[in-house]
Amino acid sequence: MAYERKNIAEMSGYVPGEQPTRTDVIKLNTNENPYPPGEGVIAALHNVSADHLRRYPNPTARGFREAAAEYHGVTPDHIIATNGGDELLRLLVTTFVDPGQVIGTAEPSYSLYPVLAAVQDARIKTLQLDDVWQLPANFARALNKAGAKLAFIVNPHAPSGRLTSVDRLSEMAEQFKGVLVIDEAYVDFVDPDLEHESTELVRDHDNVVLLRSLSKGYSLAGLRFGYGIGRPELIEPMLTKTRDSYNTDVVAQALATAAITHHGQAEETWHKVRRERLRISEQLAMTGCNLVPSQANFILVEVDAAAADGSGAAGVYQTLKDQDILVRYFDQDRLRDKLRITIGTPQQNDTLLKALADLLDVAVD
Amino acid sequence: MAYERKNIAEMSGYVPGEQPTRTDVIKLNTNENPYPPGEGVIAALHNVSADHLRRYPNPTARGFREAAAEYHGVTPDHIIATNGGDELLRLLVTTFVDPGQVIGTAEPSYSLYPVLAAVQDARIKTLQLDDVWQLPANFARALNKAGAKLAFIVNPHAPSGRLTSVDRLSEMAEQFKGVLVIDEAYVDFVDPDLEHESTELVRDHDNVVLLRSLSKGYSLAGLRFGYGIGRPELIEPMLTKTRDSYNTDVVAQALATAAITHHGQAEETWHKVRRERLRISEQLAMTGCNLVPSQANFILVEVDAAAADGSGAAGVYQTLKDQDILVRYFDQDRLRDKLRITIGTPQQNDTLLKALADLLDVAVD
Repeated sequence: MAYERKNIAEMSGYVPGEQPTRTDVIKLNTNENPYPPGEGVIAALHNVSADHLRRYPNPTARGFREAAAEYHGVTPDHIIATNGGDELLRLLVTTFVDPGQVIGTAEPSYSLYPVLAAVQDARIKTLQLDDVWQLPANFARALNKAGAKLAFIVNPHAPSGRLTSVDRLSEMAEQFKGVLVIDEAYVDFVDPDLEHESTELVRDHDNVVLLRSLSKGYSLAGLRFGYGIGRPELIEPMLTKTRDSYNTDVVAQALATAAITHHGQAEETWHKVRRERLRISEQLAMTGCNLVPSQANFILVEVDAAAADGSGAAGVYQTLKDQDILVRYFDQDRLRDKLRITIGTPQQNDTLLKALADLLDVAVD
Repeated sequence: MAYERKNIAEMSGYVPGEQPTRTDVIKLNTNENPYPPGEGVIAALHNVSADHLRRYPNPTARGFREAAAEYHGVTPDHIIATNGGDELLRLLVTTFVDPGQVIGTAEPSYSLYPVLAAVQDARIKTLQLDDVWQLPANFARALNKAGAKLAFIVNPHAPSGRLTSVDRLSEMAEQFKGVLVIDEAYVDFVDPDLEHESTELVRDHDNVVLLRSLSKGYSLAGLRFGYGIGRPELIEPMLTKTRDSYNTDVVAQALATAAITHHGQAEETWHKVRRERLRISEQLAMTGCNLVPSQANFILVEVDAAAADGSGAAGVYQTLKDQDILVRYFDQDRLRDKLRITIGTPQQNDTLLKALADLLDVAVD
């Protein structure tokens, strides 16, 4: 006898990127930061004692929330700490969307969004991004018409790296009648010259929640730590009702607090990643490769159908894998002719560029 | 404008026990193990590297699941690792109970159960435990009649410590038509002479899930690590669909795996806790205190209404707190005249017994 709910029985789960156990692979498939976490984080790790482990942690990660609030210039009641950004996404669905109601998003995007909708037995309304991965002009209006209670935008966009401006997001927040979630998992890698200050959106709108993650920007994918920034009225029901009562552990709280407090150490890695992003993008563009300007720590590269003896992007992915270089191939509409490649260290990137040059049959320098 | 769902707006959240930041308090209020985690766990902590933190963890905690499977004599597909036992409780509700459907439980019990039901917009059917905290004989039949899809039993029971036998549980599993969850957060403290082998229930019944936690038995409350044991058909939808995709982090996985692998180190603490449980229970009983035999790492003590100058259990709780001794007082039916007291170290227990003797006006030796 099957006991699970009908919607659960009928849905498919999320499929994470490969996480090989070998450490000698050039791993450019799940957007980890190629540099280690800062010294402040390592010092915090060494400070964890047996007694910390033995006792319950602070239920709401109060210390972290205070540090994050100071960093963003808000009060701690604007912040919720979560077990990875994924937990925040789930809490948003649980808190703001009844079963049968509509969640809006744009495609292609993070494939977890429709999975979370299916778990809640909610419907999903998907709009297509335009040819250069921009949100359609009617995004908010179309979602209002569909009755959407919640919308997910990932910005910078994944898997393209395209950045939507704060002004444009502000217009959408103004128009959209539900809760607008801006998934900023990659925002730390935006060029500072762009002065992309998204926390303004929280000050100006009562329906915006920003998602931040320590996985990429702070080199802490192993730790599972994310947080949300929003008006206290939006944060409070997640913080006091729908969140698991001790959702973040004492080690993660300590390391995450250290990471935010010593953010200058992470910023050095952002700078290095941006410099490599520019270098690789330029090299690939010079050879005639098609790619959009990325503001994230990855690039989306179009692969000629003739590449890898006519096997295209899927073939290039597999051939790179055979050479111990992992990149990400998505078997879904609009992405089957592309590869998403995480920015690695200069050495890793050189190895990748050389391998690509052979496979794409172009002259990469 | 309020954006949250009606059921969320109307519900109340779970209120965790006090977690003081001071470390010089005698903390007997949230059932932490008074002894530190074993050396194997501490060694695993020292082994965590910057590169572990930087990369994503294994999504399903495969290493831990293999270790736990070996410990329990099952295969890894019988095991799901969760971010504390609380996450497993939530996953069970999400996976097996539609909004509007019924969850069964017995009162008094873990106050998180009705909170999880409210988040899912499910209804809760509560039966009363009898005078000695035993499940009513009609538990399964009454829940079947109410159409319950899921039932939570905490065993040993909290807050009394009363143990229900495996035979009795097996009868209930046989009768109950939904998924029977046996929350064994405290089972490690059961006297081995009782030969309480609950994993038999998983072999004999397709509708049983056992919840285990490393918080108490393994002195790892700070770490947030629990797991479920059940038939693969019950575990699979939680493991592959409703669980957050990386629900446990790399540090927690490493420490939890070490804890289970070196379980002998934890077993020494269980023995010490049992010895103290017996000593305190006997001392209190000799003075005329009313308490049921506990198989957990706490005891539930009845407090005379005349105690603490007529302020009863609430007054005793407050007076102990003023003396830096924290115990748990529940302001709810059948518990307002009682205190739940965690078993501490011999020294902590002596301090508590002395303080209680003064307050209860009985001659505790």
